[in-house]
Amino acid sequence: MKPLSNIKLFLSDVDGCMTDGGMYYSDHGDEMKRFCVYDGMGMVQLRKAGIPCGILTSETSEIVARRAKKLNLDFLRMGVGRQVDDVRMTKKEACEQICHEMGISMDEVCFVGDDINDIDLLEAVGVAVCPQNARPEVKAISGILVMERKGGDGAIREICDRILESKTQK
Amino acid sequence: MKPLSNIKLFLSDVDGCMTDGGMYYSDHGDEMKRFCVYDGMGMVQLRKAGIPCGILTSETSEIVARRAKKLNLDFLRMGVGRQVDDVRMTKKEACEQICHEMGISMDEVCFVGDDINDIDLLEAVGVAVCPQNARPEVKAISGILVMERKGGDGAIREICDRILESKTQK
Amino acid sequence: MKPLSNIKLFLSDVDGCMTDGGMYYSDHGDEMKRFCVYDGMGMVQLRKAGIPCGILTSETSEIVARRAKKLNLDFLRMGVGRQVDDVRMTKKEACEQICHEMGISMDEVCFVGDDINDIDLLEAVGVAVCPQNARPEVKAISGILVMERKGGDGAIREICDRILESKTQK
Amino acid sequence: MKPLSNIKLFLSDVDGCMTDGGMYYSDHGDEMKRFCVYDGMGMVQLRKAGIPCGILTSETSEIVARRAKKLNLDFLRMGVGRQVDDVRMTKKEACEQICHEMGISMDEVCFVGDDINDIDLLEAVGVAVCPQNARPEVKAISGILVMERKGGDGAIREICDRILESKTQK
Repeated sequence: MKPLSNIKLFLSDVDGCMTDGGMYYSDHGDEMKRFCVYDGMGMVQLRKAGIPCGILTSETSEIVARRAKKLNLDFLRMGVGRQVDDVRMTKKEACEQICHEMGISMDEVCFVGDDINDIDLLEAVGVAVCPQNARPEVKAISGILVMERKGGDGAIREICDRILESKTQK
Repeated sequence: MKPLSNIKLFLSDVDGCMTDGGMYYSDHGDEMKRFCVYDGMGMVQLRKAGIPCGILTSETSEIVARRAKKLNLDFLRMGVGRQVDDVRMTKKEACEQICHEMGISMDEVCFVGDDINDIDLLEAVGVAVCPQNARPEVKAISGILVMERKGGDGAIREICDRILESKTQK
Repeated sequence: MKPLSNIKLFLSDVDGCMTDGGMYYSDHGDEMKRFCVYDGMGMVQLRKAGIPCGILTSETSEIVARRAKKLNLDFLRMGVGRQVDDVRMTKKEACEQICHEMGISMDEVCFVGDDINDIDLLEAVGVAVCPQNARPEVKAISGILVMERKGGDGAIREICDRILESKTQK
Repeated sequence: MKPLSNIKLFLSDVDGCMTDGGMYYSDHGDEMKRFCVYDGMGMVQLRKAGIPCGILTSETSEIVARRAKKLNLDFLRMGVGRQVDDVRMTKKEACEQICHEMGISMDEVCFVGDDINDIDLLEAVGVAVCPQNARPEVKAISGILVMERKGGDGAIREICDRILESKTQK
């Protein structure tokens, strides 16, 4: 685990991290997700402090695109990390690509994930984070920071605030 | 109760098992249900391990059809088990029909149910499972496995993971 | 408080009793409410046992009309009990009218309410019931049955089951 | 902190105060928020007692406009207090403008806020209030009243009832 004050890129999974894992289906085709106002403010603050933010998700969804746009996020990679389709880019590869673009190392990345398809990337970044509701296999990753809050209920804000504090103390 | 490692078919009720029992109504006619990302991953993993998955529900709803399609489920039987209309096929009969198609016995089926209209089938399958929020009459079934998690909050994932563990230990 | 076994009519408020009190608004005009599958089954069972069921609500909403229709409820009175408009019929008056139609007394009615505009009727019926989340003024009504469950999370099912048990023991 | 019985204007933030902080996004562009029936009744009661009520929010949303209309609120100021755009009017300035219109002082205002962009105004009003789920920086404001209830789950009703009680005791 690298120091929080070194972080130069913040990435998060969506379902279970930026949401409570709920997937709302309707008769007419709408699918909904529930995001959290506190998490949004956290990412806004990170970006104001000069740390780019982004989303890596295995879903491909207009919902996520709209949330990313609302928060002015710097990176959005959808359809990555699907274990059902190994041909596609994994979350780890997508992250490495972004690091290459930015000219930073994986050690300078903070990534938030919660399920088994996030483990590869969580083990590769400088700061691995998971919400309280993460799967046991994720919480068991060596050195991972387990948030007190759940996904969709402030877990993202919690790590954003800790990164910001580490910067001001630096 | 039969051993989990013998399971060759996984079936679940919807409301209260794959959801928290909430039924969302709108002014304009949409009805919504809230599914859980962890349960979806659980069923995906079961299917990758060669165990077909399906849904038995007394509702007839486009919502359920869409969720079943998203998860590539093998079986979907809607409108079954309605006690208000005894002419229709019961959940038990629907399950027996699927077993016949697959050439397996009821002892090789795992079914998740939560309310009184699930009891007949729960008493007939090899492994009966219910979420933490199931009705008292359901939790009282002899040998039933009561999950720690609630419906719509990981109960399905919990039993999927236990089945997968039993297979690897076998 | 009259014995549960005497009940010949079951009535409930909607928001906070049949729902968790949440009122969902959207950009495009949809308003949603979240009902509970267990409550629906409870009312279905009551009606099968020969006890008519109905809704009394101060709202006037297509949502409530649709839920009442789905459950085949016998009575639906919307727009009643509004304290902001004293000209309209109160919930107590609406209940008295239904009793007159049915030829029963207020002592034979069970009503579930949760807020200050339900108090008049709760004090007039044979069996007054409130969910765990009811306002303190409602819980303080003499003889009221306070459910263990919250509105939208099984409070209605809880009282339905208790009424059904009282009938079978009779 | 000024006495509750002096309050002549009640204002609240929306997300996290009148809602649980959840922001629902759909595929088709709807964004939803979940309000609480008890809070609505609280504001209705305050207005009946002669205390105007209003909303100050940094969002600009048809959802909030519809909720304000349903509750017949006296003031609605949207798009205020955005820290990302310092040119706009802050929440404090918007409140001062309303006080000027009404001919009252900031000491006679009760404001409910929950996040860092509410702090300036919370420190300027006579009675500062926050829901149980407010950010630590908000809860730490000197003299602030921290509600037992969370936003979207009765926090607004709690302070409304306390104001009404203070008026009757006066």
